[in-house]
Parts: sequence; structure tokens; C-alpha cells
Amino acid sequence: MPYSDRVRQILGWYSSDNPGVVTNIARLLNHGTLAGTGKLVILPVDQGFEHGPHRSFAPNPAGYDPDYHFQLAIDAGCNAYAAPLGFLEAGAAKFAGQVPLILKLNNSDTLAKMDQPCSAVTGSVKDAVRLGCSAIGYTIYPGSGARNEMYEDLRELILEAKDHGLPTVVWSYPRGAGISKDGETAVDVCAYAAQIAAQLGAHVIKVKPPKDFIEQPEAMKVYEKFKIPTGTLAERVRHVVQSSFNGKRIVIFSGGEAKDTGAIMEEIKGIADGGGFGSIMGRNAFQRPKDEALKLLKDVMAVYQATK
Amino acid sequence: MPYSDRVRQILGWYSSDNPGVVTNIARLLNHGTLAGTGKLVILPVDQGFEHGPHRSFAPNPAGYDPDYHFQLAIDAGCNAYAAPLGFLEAGAAKFAGQVPLILKLNNSDTLAKMDQPCSAVTGSVKDAVRLGCSAIGYTIYPGSGARNEMYEDLRELILEAKDHGLPTVVWSYPRGAGISKDGETAVDVCAYAAQIAAQLGAHVIKVKPPKDFIEQPEAMKVYEKFKIPTGTLAERVRHVVQSSFNGKRIVIFSGGEAKDTGAIMEEIKGIADGGGFGSIMGRNAFQRPKDEALKLLKDVMAVYQATK
Amino acid sequence: MPYSDRVRQILGWYSSDNPGVVTNIARLLNHGTLAGTGKLVILPVDQGFEHGPHRSFAPNPAGYDPDYHFQLAIDAGCNAYAAPLGFLEAGAAKFAGQVPLILKLNNSDTLAKMDQPCSAVTGSVKDAVRLGCSAIGYTIYPGSGARNEMYEDLRELILEAKDHGLPTVVWSYPRGAGISKDGETAVDVCAYAAQIAAQLGAHVIKVKPPKDFIEQPEAMKVYEKFKIPTGTLAERVRHVVQSSFNGKRIVIFSGGEAKDTGAIMEEIKGIADGGGFGSIMGRNAFQRPKDEALKLLKDVMAVYQATK
Amino acid sequence: MPYSDRVRQILGWYSSDNPGVVTNIARLLNHGTLAGTGKLVILPVDQGFEHGPHRSFAPNPAGYDPDYHFQLAIDAGCNAYAAPLGFLEAGAAKFAGQVPLILKLNNSDTLAKMDQPCSAVTGSVKDAVRLGCSAIGYTIYPGSGARNEMYEDLRELILEAKDHGLPTVVWSYPRGAGISKDGETAVDVCAYAAQIAAQLGAHVIKVKPPKDFIEQPEAMKVYEKFKIPTGTLAERVRHVVQSSFNGKRIVIFSGGEAKDTGAIMEEIKGIADGGGFGSIMGRNAFQRPKDEALKLLKDVMAVYQATK
Amino acid sequence: MPYSDRVRQILGWYSSDNPGVVTNIARLLNHGTLAGTGKLVILPVDQGFEHGPHRSFAPNPAGYDPDYHFQLAIDAGCNAYAAPLGFLEAGAAKFAGQVPLILKLNNSDTLAKMDQPCSAVTGSVKDAVRLGCSAIGYTIYPGSGARNEMYEDLRELILEAKDHGLPTVVWSYPRGAGISKDGETAVDVCAYAAQIAAQLGAHVIKVKPPKDFIEQPEAMKVYEKFKIPTGTLAERVRHVVQSSFNGKRIVIFSGGEAKDTGAIMEEIKGIADGGGFGSIMGRNAFQRPKDEALKLLKDVMAVYQATK
Repeated sequence: MPYSDRVRQILGWYSSDNPGVVTNIARLLNHGTLAGTGKLVILPVDQGFEHGPHRSFAPNPAGYDPDYHFQLAIDAGCNAYAAPLGFLEAGAAKFAGQVPLILKLNNSDTLAKMDQPCSAVTGSVKDAVRLGCSAIGYTIYPGSGARNEMYEDLRELILEAKDHGLPTVVWSYPRGAGISKDGETAVDVCAYAAQIAAQLGAHVIKVKPPKDFIEQPEAMKVYEKFKIPTGTLAERVRHVVQSSFNGKRIVIFSGGEAKDTGAIMEEIKGIADGGGFGSIMGRNAFQRPKDEALKLLKDVMAVYQATK
Repeated sequence: MPYSDRVRQILGWYSSDNPGVVTNIARLLNHGTLAGTGKLVILPVDQGFEHGPHRSFAPNPAGYDPDYHFQLAIDAGCNAYAAPLGFLEAGAAKFAGQVPLILKLNNSDTLAKMDQPCSAVTGSVKDAVRLGCSAIGYTIYPGSGARNEMYEDLRELILEAKDHGLPTVVWSYPRGAGISKDGETAVDVCAYAAQIAAQLGAHVIKVKPPKDFIEQPEAMKVYEKFKIPTGTLAERVRHVVQSSFNGKRIVIFSGGEAKDTGAIMEEIKGIADGGGFGSIMGRNAFQRPKDEALKLLKDVMAVYQATK
Repeated sequence: MPYSDRVRQILGWYSSDNPGVVTNIARLLNHGTLAGTGKLVILPVDQGFEHGPHRSFAPNPAGYDPDYHFQLAIDAGCNAYAAPLGFLEAGAAKFAGQVPLILKLNNSDTLAKMDQPCSAVTGSVKDAVRLGCSAIGYTIYPGSGARNEMYEDLRELILEAKDHGLPTVVWSYPRGAGISKDGETAVDVCAYAAQIAAQLGAHVIKVKPPKDFIEQPEAMKVYEKFKIPTGTLAERVRHVVQSSFNGKRIVIFSGGEAKDTGAIMEEIKGIADGGGFGSIMGRNAFQRPKDEALKLLKDVMAVYQATK
Repeated sequence: MPYSDRVRQILGWYSSDNPGVVTNIARLLNHGTLAGTGKLVILPVDQGFEHGPHRSFAPNPAGYDPDYHFQLAIDAGCNAYAAPLGFLEAGAAKFAGQVPLILKLNNSDTLAKMDQPCSAVTGSVKDAVRLGCSAIGYTIYPGSGARNEMYEDLRELILEAKDHGLPTVVWSYPRGAGISKDGETAVDVCAYAAQIAAQLGAHVIKVKPPKDFIEQPEAMKVYEKFKIPTGTLAERVRHVVQSSFNGKRIVIFSGGEAKDTGAIMEEIKGIADGGGFGSIMGRNAFQRPKDEALKLLKDVMAVYQATK
Repeated sequence: MPYSDRVRQILGWYSSDNPGVVTNIARLLNHGTLAGTGKLVILPVDQGFEHGPHRSFAPNPAGYDPDYHFQLAIDAGCNAYAAPLGFLEAGAAKFAGQVPLILKLNNSDTLAKMDQPCSAVTGSVKDAVRLGCSAIGYTIYPGSGARNEMYEDLRELILEAKDHGLPTVVWSYPRGAGISKDGETAVDVCAYAAQIAAQLGAHVIKVKPPKDFIEQPEAMKVYEKFKIPTGTLAERVRHVVQSSFNGKRIVIFSGGEAKDTGAIMEEIKGIADGGGFGSIMGRNAFQRPKDEALKLLKDVMAVYQATK
């Protein structure tokens, strides 16, 4: 499939990377329903690890089975499917080549109390390569006292991934002693988190939809002085996109907890209007019965197509 | 020996692994009394390290001798014998090729007070290879603040073991500041522990038989909302098996402290009824006189054969 | 371009280094408006990481775009442009060969509370090489309890950089439990910080303009006994230059917070009069509208040219 | 010299090891007065490091000189001489081939207060090889919170030593926050310490003579229930030997502080009667005038020969 | 120059080392005014790093310049010049081959408050080799809780240095929570510090002149019981030399703070009378005007020559 102009433009922002990395970014952009639009909808299923199997899969028990999610991502026309080592390994051979895979290289669980939030590195670039993945994924917690460890592990993984022609998707989730609970989704913090991921070398950045709250007093002065608009989700998303190298890095937004369809669609429209590159939608997809999930994902993709 | 359909089915779940790893999983499944049934009974003897020699071997002093356990596993028709470096090294040459060996790569003792529970890595993949083992074993303590260290060491060991064609058995024993004493065997925690091991890439998962107790408030809501049955051991085992990739990972259950034969057989039936893949039975085996141990192991295997 | 006598003299101080390193020092000295003068004005843009995108770029939103800073450094005739991995990677291919690049290898953000200040290592020598850089940059915080970690990481990076023909620019910013807030810019501390960087093997040292304050009681005795003059900025700069191997290491000074043009030019004159080798000027450049920034940088360079 | 039946039997327990390792175990067993008996008396001189030169050598100042100890071990017909890097390096070339050497790879001093007792690793396998040693030595402190670090360093050293054909002697000295002062020589703790060393892969285990005291309540129950005799030193030694893989690992006993000859000979008889494999005797040897030391070592060896 | 008998004797103590290492020890012993005498006077200039440039060089500002110290060592006929990376690198090419160089591989500054004293490793063996050095230097702080880290880093550096034919000079300076301020120069502690350095494999040991004070109660008993004389500096030096393998390791003494010429010469005589191998004299040399420094160093060397 020849590249669309939009895809060609996006790939141009990654011109310092080797052709292998650019090829895999192109694979993500040119797969599924949104192929060629420059928009992405990705299915992530790491909640079994992050929240436990019961909280994740009891609402739709088909999801206990790793095959289910591969097939869901394929049937829904998602751009990619992202999961930890075990889940990908369980289906990588069976579904080989049917959907781009993103191996999420670090994960956390809710059983331990950590002094400073820091996910464990539970997979490797070597795993991503042998499983035929198109990208690696990694979560950082800006705001944690374990920041240096996470940033430094990420630095080495990005470099190793590049050597194998793989781009990196960074989940940038502010958390830790440095910020308040509300601050985790504050607009200044989300924008800062996106900037950090971009400066660390992320090819694709994933943040949470920012709320109309400002955490840092020093930032507040700037928002007031320069009258940066943050009243609507679209405005806040636009600010985050701007903070991602003036939109020259792909930024997508997570859906968060399961909620009703109306609320989801409202949020997607805000993201799309603000110039977001798409969504990564897990619980809202796989916790619904499959037909409802397919319908929802189709509707979400339609919104992004409409704003193309 | 040609593969049974059940063994062929089980091996199919590991199709992303290289033939070397699959071959060794097949060795475990095709050895001993339960060969071909897809069920396993494994003899583990790490208690000399974990609890001390006196507490482990005084009840049956023949067990002070490393040769004893090799011969017991062979005579009982166990699928495999698992032990730390010293015990395996003491007999690996003498009993070479008579029973599949699992080198347990980390161990803890009761002499030290650790801030966060974390076993020491006391063996290596290189040791497993030179001793002719069919698998490595590793213990994780989900719930410990040293979680990241354990998960990350395991990640590297799994990868190195794969390079040598060896599968990995993960003892997943929740423990640490994040959970209560009762919570260590709570059904939600056991299911979560099994899921974590599976996501980390374990080929065989070992957990304790779950009790009818729920630890995490967030999990409780889900068990109530979706009416997940946990009243019988069989139900709880079924839930743990489901939490292990919908039964697509081998899950076996430990026996715990020495107890009377009736209680043991009751528990085995619960495990078998719930779809468990078998047992790993140490103290209940080697602390009995040898003829009693052989009789017990034979009866246990018979239960698993009957539920085939 | 043949070397000027001054450049030849400066390069002579680095005669223990391999020709690759000396070549890249020469590239820094022989580029831009100040080429051949032995003076440098460098544009650094790491504030998006260090302070956040809003605080850095809202005053002049063109700066959200990584291309902007490459072009600004080129148009202003700066000797080099220094930035973290993400910003350099975004433009390295597009602007290849138009301005010497310095990859800043470690960075900090304001979201986390660190026990001991210590930047994360966010880039590597390998990155600098593949992006065509002429030098690496690294920040140390003398005064921090994490001093050893920073000095030791730097030691390895300098050695690795030399192997690739790259010199090292060290940002030496005293900070941490060992010194007071005022002490961070005290003249004795700045001089000490410059000495430490020089002893660690820095080729170019960057410190803050020293203030007329003395932090350490033991140092105070010496300043009094030997009547070391510290009343004017020029005198303090001269003392810092002397503390950098009697001026045989290149020492440049940062501009700090944005301020009015008069104050900036005053400071530049002090640095120039004291024998400083130049300035590294970020916020005072990129937070102004581009035409004002070009004017300011031109004026600054004129001061250095006049004191040649 | 052809192997005696006893030596042949002992070597048979190490059949999983490569011939290089077995050869060096044979060298220890076949050297000196006790050659071929299966018993060992080893001279260890690490007290200069562990307690200081004055406390170690002032009683017999000839011992300040490293040559003295080589010659003492040779003249006394010891099976081997064990010391830290410096002491061995000082004489290894001069006395090359005259007595088997054991390089003690970790050491502690009394100058520092450590939170958790843990010796520094002060030598390497590479050192042992270049100095012509027949074994490496390593001290673990079961009971210390730094247990994992020590066990893991030991694991790597054993593996590396095997690659060079060298066996490992483990000093297993319980110590740390997990046990009481009396508990350090409690019979249950000594037995446990011997078991841990054996499971970690030690070829030769060195423990202190156990006292008639039981530290752990859980162990106490077992000693009482199974009526394990611990009243005499011989009984306690027998229990420790049994705890060392039923006597299939060489276990030797240290002499501890200097004491009078009668007390020493009493202790040696207890060790010999209990089936101990010999002694490692430092201060009681080198702090006496040389002729007295030779006499004492001769008498000690005679006891072991008599119990052959 | 053929070896003198004394040099031949000294080199004989290092017979376990490879010829490359022995050659470089010979270089130190056969250079300068004291060549062939078996005595050494070394110029160390690390105070710019350790105490700051002002406290070090303001008394004689010529010392700010790295060239000054090379020339001073050459003109004074010192056996060697020792300094950190930056200072050596600044002159190594210019003064190549004129005086043996010792690269001091770790350094500390006074800006940070460290929980446990521990210098940063600021240079590498690779640096020493490329700069043409004849030895590496390393400082340990026996008594610090960071002891293990320092001893272990040193172990690896010694081994790597040997591979490149370089001997190691160890600065053994007791310091840390384990000892009192007076204890840092107590005679028992100095002797112990010398022993530790020797056991760690130091080729040349540097300690401070011991004072007539005993720190450790256990040591005190020994000094009293065996009536070890410590009343004069010569007696204490003799004891330290004895504690350095009965004088079979080169032990030299530092001069400490700047003091008047009479006091210095008094101290040198004590060291010489006690059998010390020489001095390492920094501040007392480079803080004097050059002609006075040359005169002092000449007088010091004369004392050592007289006691040959």
C-alpha cells in the first residue's frame, strides 16, 4: 500500500531514525480500519497484570483467554495490539502477521506496596524481536522518586530497540511523591509528561486525557500570564499535542476506567477535535461483550476518520 | 513414545517457544506414572534450605542423604524431581537420565530477617544445563517490596533458559508488606499470583491451594458483582486455572505442611475436580517412611489418572 | 579554514587527547560568528525537560517546535546548539551539518522530589555519534549526596566519548544537602565546581556567573588571608577561570533566568572582562521573539569579539 | 600416589563435577601428613585482615612475615594453607608447589560498623588461578540481612571457579540481626549453616564447633520430638556432618580463639569422634612459637589418624 | 641503569607479579634523586579536588597551572608525580617521559555531605595506560560503612592494572563511623590500615604518620601485654612497617597540612629512623615558593639518603 500524504508527513518527523524503525512506525499507521489516516486506535490488554485477572476479565470471561484479544484486535481493525510478555507469547505464533504487536516491557501489580512507584521490567527487546512485534512499550511514572531508574532503563531499551528496527511507545503516567492525586491528570502535568516522553526519544506517546486542573504553582503563573486556554478537553488535548514537539510526535490518549458509551464518545470527540492522534482503549473494549466492543471501536474509529 | 492427544494439545499452547523448550515440556509430561495424561506429580526437596535440615529430615532421617530423594522420585514414578543446586549436584551424575530434574534457582532460609522477602539466586541456567536438567525453577513473592528485583531476575533467567531449550517453573507465593497473612492464600490473591506468573512467561505455574477468603477490597466487589463461586476447593482451583490464561498454562498445586493422609487425598480430589494439572508434593512424601510415601504418591497419581 | 593563533593555542591545551577529540573542539571554536576568536556563544534548549514545556515555550510558542531552535542557532551564528535526545533527534537529519550539535546526556525534571539531586542519564554516546554531534554534555551537581554516582557515570561517558572522537562539555551546578541555597552561586563554590569539572576531564566547563558571597568557612580564611578580589563580576570570573587550570580549560557561563536586555549585556561585559570564554544562553534567547533574539545574540557576540 | 579407598570414596561424592575440580579436591586430600586418610588439617591466616596485625601477630612476631606461614604449613605437613590475596601473593612464587593454597576471596575488618555483616570480596578466581591455588575460599554469614548478596556472589564465584577446575571451601559463620549472639554457635544453627553451604554448592564446608544450645523455637520442637542427641561435642559434630548431605560433603571445624593445649586436644577428639573431616587451625597454631606449633599440629593430626 | 642490591631486594618481594608490574615498580624506584636507594619522595597534587582550588593554590598561585607541578616534580628529582585525571591529562603529552606518573583513580571533595565517606572513582586504568603512567593510585577509607564498595572497586582495579603491567599505590586513610576523629591517626589503626592495604594487594602503601594513641580496646590489651613501644614516631613507623608484611611492602608516609620547615624535617627523620620507605609530600611542597620547595625537597631526600 502506497503511503498517504499524511503518513508520509508523519514519517518525515522521524527522519533521524533508521529505515527499520520508520518501517515499523509505518506498519502501525498503515494497518486496520484507520490505515493511512494518520490516526490510531490500539487495543492494550495489560490489566490482568496491573489490576488482577478477576477485576479485568470477570465482566466478560472470554477475556481470560489470550486468543480472545488477538482476535478482537483483528476483527475490530485496530492498528495494533499491546500486551505483556505472557499474553503475547500465548498467541504470537497462532496469529502471526495478522495484527501489529506491541510488547509492553514493564508492568506493575497492586499486590505490593512500593515506596516509590516503579514498574518491573518484565520483557526484553529480544522477546519483542522473537515474537515478531512492531514496537516495544514502556511505562514511566514522572513524579516518582524512582524516576531516574525508569528513564535510564527506557534509554537503554529505546537504543536496543532501534538496533532491531523497533520504535518505542511510551506510557507517560505522572505518579509519586512529587505530585498530588489530582495532579496526576492536571493539564500542566500531562503536558509536561508528554514533553518528557518526547525528549526521552519516544516515537509514540500515550497520556491520560488531561483535566482542567493545574498542579504546579510555577506553571500556574505561566498559564495565567499567557492565557493558555484549558477549559475544554479539545483545548487541553491541543496543548498536550503542542507540548509534544508542536505535534511532531504521535500522541494518543487512554480511555481509563470502563464507562458508558455516551461518555466515551464524548471524550473521543474532544481528543479528535484537539488534534490527538488517536486512542488506546482497553477495558472499555474487552470488558464489553464482543459485538458491543466491535460496535464501539467502529464508532470510535469513525470519529477519528471524520476529523482526518 | 508418541504424544497423546492431550499432550499434543498442551504443547500447542507453547507454540511461540522454540522446539528445545517444547521438547523439555514434553519430557516432563511424558515421564513416569502419569506420562501422557497431561497431569503431573513432582517431588520437590528444597526444605533443607528453606526450613533447615532438622525440621526437614529428622522425621525420616534417610532424607538427609541426597541420593534418597532421587530414588524416591524414580521409584514413585514422579514426572520430575526439583531441588536446589547442592542436592541436584550430589546425585546428577549417579542418577543421570532416570528422572527429569528441575533446578530450583533461588532459595531462602529462616535465619535472616529480611526487610522485604526475597530469595537469593543460588543457581544458574548454566548449572541446570551442565547437570542435565529439563527445566529451571524460580520463586517469586508477589506482594513483596522487592517484587521488581525478583520479576526482573526471572525475566533474564527465562530468556537465558529458552536459549538453552529449558522451560521455567515459577513458584508464585504471595508474601510481603502488601498483603495480610491470611491474604497469602486468599483466592483472589492466588488467582492474581497465577496470572502474574503467566504474564511473566512461566511455562509451569505452582501456587498454593487457595482458601475461601478474599483479600483485596477492589477484588471483593468483582467477586460479589459477578457471583464468582469460591465455596469449594474445586471451584477455587477452577478459578485459578481460568486465571492462568483460561487454562492454557500448566498450573500445579503444592501440598504444604505435612498432614494426615485423609486430608491430603481430600485436597488432591479438590484440585483434580477443579481442573488442576497436578501436584508438587514434598514434605508429605519424603517425611514419611519410604513405603508409605510410595503408597501415598501412587494413590495421588490414581486420582489424577481417574480425572483424566 | 586555517586555525587562528588563538585557536591553535587553545587546542594545544588538549594535546593529550586524540586527534578526533581535538578536531571536534576545533569545530566548536571555528563555527559561526565567533569562529577563530577562541570565544563561544552556545544555544542550549533543555528547559522543556528541566522546567516543563509551558514555562519554557509559552512566552514564544514558536519554541514548542524543535526545528525552531536549530534554525535560531544557525541564523544567529552560534558556535553550537545543545539539547536533550528528543529535541536533537527531531531535527538532526533535517539540519545535518549546519551547526555543531551537543547532545546533553542527562536531564532532570521538576515533577519528582529527589532525596539527593541527580539527573537521569537520558542519552548515550552512541546516540551522539549516530546524530552527528560534535560533543556530549553532562550535568554534575557538586554538593549532592549522589555525587559519586554522577562523577562515575561522567567518567565512563568521557572515556567512551573519547573513543568516538567526541569532547565533553560539563555543566557544573553545585546543589544538594552539602551547600546552602546562596552557596550554589558563591564564588568559592563556583571556583571549586569549575576545578572539579576540570579534574574530572571536562573539555569545556559551564558554570553560573559567581556572586560576591563565600560559602565555606575554610575557604573564607583563604580569601581573606590572600586578599583574593571578588568585588566585581569580572574579578570573580577571573578567579573561576584561574581555578580552571589557570585558564587552560575553556570555561563558559550560563545566563540563567530571563531578564531585561540591559542586565544581560552588563553581565556579558563582566564575563568578557574577566576572561571568560563565552556564554551559553537559552531562555534569554529563545523566549524572545526571533528578531529580538537574533539582535541580542549579535550584541553579545560583539562584546566577546571586542575583548578578543 | 595412588588413591586410598577412602579418598576414592570421598571423590565419588563429587562425581557431577568436572575432572579439574575433582583433581584439586584430590590434591587437598593427598597432601601432607594426613594424605590419603580422608582427613584434613588446614592452616588459615586471615586474622591480620579480620582482627588486625597486632592482635594476630604480636604474640609471635615472626608471623608478621608472610613467608613464615607458608613455611609453617609446609613443615607441619598441613593439607593446605589458606589466606587472603596479599599474604598469598607475597609467597606464592617463592613457595610454588610446596603446599596446596586456598585463596580466601572475601574478608572483613573490625574498623567499620556495618549495618548488616558482609565481608568485602577482596580477591578473584583469576587471582587464584594465576597464583597456582588449589581452591578458593569464601565466607558467608547466614543470619545477616545481606545474605542474598553473599549467596549470590558465592554462586558466581563457584561457577567461575569450576570453569577453572577449582573447588570451593565455604566458611559458614551464622551472624546478623536474625540470630542471637549465643545462637551463632547453637547446634541447630550450625547444622543449618552447614546445610546452606552444601546446598549452595560448597565442596568443603567449614563451621565452628557447635555448642549445646538451640536457637530457633521451631527447631527446638523437632529436637525434642525426635530426641536428637546434642549433649556431647561428638554428638553435635555427628549431627552437623549428617546435615551436610549425610556426610557426603567434607566438613571441617575451626578452632576459634587461642586456648591452652589441653582444651584444644579435647575439642579435636570430640570432632574426630563425631566423624568430622578435620580442622582448620589458625591462631592456636601461628601464635605459638614455631616448635610448639609444630608439636601441637602433629598431635592434632595424630588424633585424626587414629580415628581413620 | 643496573639495579642496586637494595632495589633488587625490594623487587624480589613482588616476584608473584608479572614482569610488566615489576618493571614499573622499578621505574618508581630508579627515578630521580633517590634512584637506586630504595627510598621514594613523591609529589601528589590532588588537593584542588579534595579541598578546593583556593585553599590549595592561593598560597602559591603558580600552582593553579597544571604544568607547574610536572615541572616541580622534575626539577626536584621526585620519584613520581601523582594527580587526578584532569591535572595529568593537562600535561601528560607535554612532559611525556620526564617523570613517572601515578594516576589517582578516586577522589572526594568537601562540597557534599556523604553518609559514609567514599571517594568517587574519577579515572580508569585505561586512562592511566593512554597517559603513559607508571602506576595507579586509589584511596580507601577503612572504618567507613562503604568499605566493601571501596575494597571491591580496588580489587577490580588492581587486577585490571596488573593486566596492563601497572602496580597500585593505595592511600589507606581510616575514616568513618567506625572510628573516632583521634582514631584516624592512632597507631593501632594506622598499622591495621597498612595491613589491610597490603592484604588487598597494594604494591605501595601510603599512610599518615601514626600518633601515640590507641583506638581499639581489643588492640590496647595487646599493646600492653606485649609491650609494643609506641612512644616515638620512629617506633610507631617501625610498627607500621612491620605491619606491612614485615617490611616486605613499600610503605610511605604523607606530610599532611602545611607546617614549618623544622617540624617537617623532624617528622621526616622519625619516618626515616623507623624504616619508612619515604614520603609523599604535597602541600608542604607546592604551597611554598618554588625555590623554597626545591630546597625543602632536597633536604628531605638527603635525610632518606643518609639512612640508606
